[in-house]
Amino acid sequence: MRTTQYLLSTTKEKPADAEVISHQLMLRAGMIRKVAAGLYNWLPSGLRVLRKVEQVVREEMSRAGAVEILMPVVQPSDLWEESGRWEDYGPELCRLRDRHNRQFLLGPTHEEVVTALVRNEVASYKQLPLNLFQIQTKFRDEIRPRFGVMRGREFTMKDAYSFHLTDECLAQTYQVMFDAYCRIFERLGLNYRPVIADTGSIGGSTSHEFHVLADSGEDDIAFSDGSDYAANVEMAEAICTEQRAEATEAMSEFDTPDAKTIADLTEQFGIPAAQGIKTLIVKASDDSDHELIALLVRGDHELNEIKAEKLADVAAPLQFASDEEIKAAVGALPGSLGPVKLPMPIVADSAVAIMADFVAGANVDGKHYKGINWERDLPAPQVADLRNVQAGDPSPCGNGKLDIKRGIEVGHIFQLGDKYSKAMNAGVLGETGKHQTMTMGCYGIGVSRIVAAAIEQNHDDRGIIWPDALAPFQVVLIPMNMHKSHRVKEVAEKLYAELTAAGIEVLFDDRKERPGVMFKDMELIGIPHTIVIGERGLDQQVVEYKHRRDGEKHEIAIDQMVAHVQAQLAD
Amino acid sequence: MRTTQYLLSTTKEKPADAEVISHQLMLRAGMIRKVAAGLYNWLPSGLRVLRKVEQVVREEMSRAGAVEILMPVVQPSDLWEESGRWEDYGPELCRLRDRHNRQFLLGPTHEEVVTALVRNEVASYKQLPLNLFQIQTKFRDEIRPRFGVMRGREFTMKDAYSFHLTDECLAQTYQVMFDAYCRIFERLGLNYRPVIADTGSIGGSTSHEFHVLADSGEDDIAFSDGSDYAANVEMAEAICTEQRAEATEAMSEFDTPDAKTIADLTEQFGIPAAQGIKTLIVKASDDSDHELIALLVRGDHELNEIKAEKLADVAAPLQFASDEEIKAAVGALPGSLGPVKLPMPIVADSAVAIMADFVAGANVDGKHYKGINWERDLPAPQVADLRNVQAGDPSPCGNGKLDIKRGIEVGHIFQLGDKYSKAMNAGVLGETGKHQTMTMGCYGIGVSRIVAAAIEQNHDDRGIIWPDALAPFQVVLIPMNMHKSHRVKEVAEKLYAELTAAGIEVLFDDRKERPGVMFKDMELIGIPHTIVIGERGLDQQVVEYKHRRDGEKHEIAIDQMVAHVQAQLAD
Repeated sequence: MRTTQYLLSTTKEKPADAEVISHQLMLRAGMIRKVAAGLYNWLPSGLRVLRKVEQVVREEMSRAGAVEILMPVVQPSDLWEESGRWEDYGPELCRLRDRHNRQFLLGPTHEEVVTALVRNEVASYKQLPLNLFQIQTKFRDEIRPRFGVMRGREFTMKDAYSFHLTDECLAQTYQVMFDAYCRIFERLGLNYRPVIADTGSIGGSTSHEFHVLADSGEDDIAFSDGSDYAANVEMAEAICTEQRAEATEAMSEFDTPDAKTIADLTEQFGIPAAQGIKTLIVKASDDSDHELIALLVRGDHELNEIKAEKLADVAAPLQFASDEEIKAAVGALPGSLGPVKLPMPIVADSAVAIMADFVAGANVDGKHYKGINWERDLPAPQVADLRNVQAGDPSPCGNGKLDIKRGIEVGHIFQLGDKYSKAMNAGVLGETGKHQTMTMGCYGIGVSRIVAAAIEQNHDDRGIIWPDALAPFQVVLIPMNMHKSHRVKEVAEKLYAELTAAGIEVLFDDRKERPGVMFKDMELIGIPHTIVIGERGLDQQVVEYKHRRDGEKHEIAIDQMVAHVQAQLAD
Repeated sequence: MRTTQYLLSTTKEKPADAEVISHQLMLRAGMIRKVAAGLYNWLPSGLRVLRKVEQVVREEMSRAGAVEILMPVVQPSDLWEESGRWEDYGPELCRLRDRHNRQFLLGPTHEEVVTALVRNEVASYKQLPLNLFQIQTKFRDEIRPRFGVMRGREFTMKDAYSFHLTDECLAQTYQVMFDAYCRIFERLGLNYRPVIADTGSIGGSTSHEFHVLADSGEDDIAFSDGSDYAANVEMAEAICTEQRAEATEAMSEFDTPDAKTIADLTEQFGIPAAQGIKTLIVKASDDSDHELIALLVRGDHELNEIKAEKLADVAAPLQFASDEEIKAAVGALPGSLGPVKLPMPIVADSAVAIMADFVAGANVDGKHYKGINWERDLPAPQVADLRNVQAGDPSPCGNGKLDIKRGIEVGHIFQLGDKYSKAMNAGVLGETGKHQTMTMGCYGIGVSRIVAAAIEQNHDDRGIIWPDALAPFQVVLIPMNMHKSHRVKEVAEKLYAELTAAGIEVLFDDRKERPGVMFKDMELIGIPHTIVIGERGLDQQVVEYKHRRDGEKHEIAIDQMVAHVQAQLAD
């Protein structure tokens, strides 16, 4: 490809509204352009990378026995009514009507469509297991699209769905997909980790996310320093092995007119955060005899909402009580709440249950108690794991301590079970001739998000540094002052023809630009292998080769260049 | 690919609601499944063919200098307000709102998005010409989706858009695209013709459609038998070289109480259709001094609405007057109308203007005149080309006569001019430093429709007969009773491994099915090259090869089979 026939669209300026480095570099390198919030044009260089990701994903999915299909972007509402998601899915689901006023939606995932397909096409257990995948445009009406294609509204996803007679068979395919995902992310040259994950609104039991590690990630991942254990912080169990200490203080009330938070108590009264507790009032579930429930976490800990939501008595999704509701029930406002004589059920995090001589609100505005002790000043509470793990916590696997890093979720696999197949009556005739509901797995990869995640891991202050597997072009040819030197032009054209004939993807920068402009642009775009052709070397029949990563210059004989590049690519 | 790990989904039954052969065969061969009206799942075999079409299109577009991008399916309404199409486009445009109540649409084409992109990215004439293409999902809310993927609502299209400083440059790129389209349809093995076309709602001047010739086509194409001339019947000029004959009869009124149509006049009074005229009353344009206009075509001719619409005094789109409006203006109803003393302007087709002694309604219900002659009984009319050409008409090119065939439109190219660039203010700095509006071309190919069109041209009563370039697999391996014969299994596995290693796409039918079932399925799917492995040949180390098209059996040595298939594919 010649740059003069291409849409290079590089820019020097740092884009104003791009918060993360991948978004900035994708704009500056001419990979994407915004059309509207969360909607992007993929420019030529961006699309070339996107297609490379797609191809690696396609090859590894096929190798793992999945068969490619293509389902429509626009889906009829009736299938979603069968599964129940037409009602359950929030405003992220883009609903629309056709000219006959029939209801449709833009698919955020395709469980319903694929389940209906397999229900019709597969009649016997002999046709199972079956694993179908597609690489297709998805739409999710994110409330706050951001970070470019990292969290766009329209995006490319690989989604696979497997169908089985038994959960054992599902578990086997799940493992095959797990391994395929590892190969995909390895081939793409990404620093990634599979982590234990929540199954969320998709439903089902076992689930893993695949995260690319990067500071700009939106998820916190907990890793053990003593084993392979890794889990989304949402899911990592907080282990409490300590015993409760003896009470040493008497409980006493003190005035705290200006202390509404743990930080205020620390600042105004020198109370360590780990000595205080936070009392959080949430709505009870419809099944509960109560309206409100109090959740207690230690002052230096954070409530884990997913863990809280799983408590039987707590409404899901989690809803915090309003100030008015709290005042009406307790007689005090948030900031002065505590477990002593609190008129509602209490669930304490396990780290709270072992506290002694602790500090909490007195349920009177502007007053706290100190020296509170369980089973003396108030009954022992119901205990649960309610908090996010923190760096330094013991690993739930039993080996090592936890470290916390940021991750970008690029893949997610689920053992769905019969959530969809049961609701949609998708079964087969089993070995004994009886109708049997199928069990399902589903396996997603955020194809467009991977492009951004790869940049987060592969860049420097001059631009992107593509791994060979993802580079929009493998080689860039930079002829210096070609428009003035016939010799330079001749060698450049010869190398362009030879490299292209060898099946190497070459960008030939044939613009009438100063060499400095060309170097800057090509470093920004991140093409890994650079060949510079200048007058100087031509008497010796050599040209300059350098790699984007180290920038080290090597003089290579012109007639050895194809072999040299091939050797570099084979590395 | 092994059939046991595949989703074959063939069916014997002729589908009830499939009107055309391609739709029937795509359902029966397991290529597509309906999700809702005009929305389809592409099953594995269908998708493999779709991707092959995409790849040929992509390669030839790239070879012709177009650069691939990807624009979003969901587009914001504001760009369409700039171009004016938000108002102009009818209910085929699927409009929707996001969670913030902002207006969007599902793209039926992408002129607005690409024009806005180029407006922002291209500043100087030096960056022109530029030709951008994408292969993307489109949505058109067809009032009556039919013929499977031939006229679906969601479909895959290749659309390209070129940008130029001058119309000469546009004309050059238009010719390059014209040639690229010819190469694409040739590589796909299709019997196609480029035809002169109407520019319709896309706008612009010069335009060609590319039609695959098939009886099930929805368009009529007029061909010259004496030249390369071909045009959509909508566009073919009707040539009239004859002179008007002398009047030989006096005009006289006769009673026609039961004759409302030309066919009635022929049946009841023996008047040849070519001696009668049809008087069609349409609305005048807003600019006209009149409300209604009468259009006259010969009794055996059909009005061409596109030609009529282009008359200055006629409203566009064409609107026929209602019976009430006609009765009020003329005093008679349709069925008794004619040009004599008709109180409105008259435009006669050129074939009508040379008629003598002709028959028409008397503008009194139940009465007609015969023996009418121009310039004696009524003034000579305004003359225009108003009718569809017919088989046997002289070709407008001056050589030969016209023949009419049915065609399926699979491509359409336009010289758009400045329709979009002017409305959206898309310009560059020209050579003299002045801002200059760009001129544009656009070039579409119906990728998914091509799959159906290819089947219309390549099938027999047993199923599809794929050209090598489009076949979902190149070779099918049919081992007879493999599950009983170890020797058959061994040879089948060996050939599967060897062919696959040679880069040949093989479907290995490893089902426990009777050979007859396998043969029927594979003929239905249309895989071109078949290898049958049976016990009988193995003593001589031979297996059977046959081609789907002729079915002729050849015994080939097992160790020669890869070379044999390669030779067949190279043919």
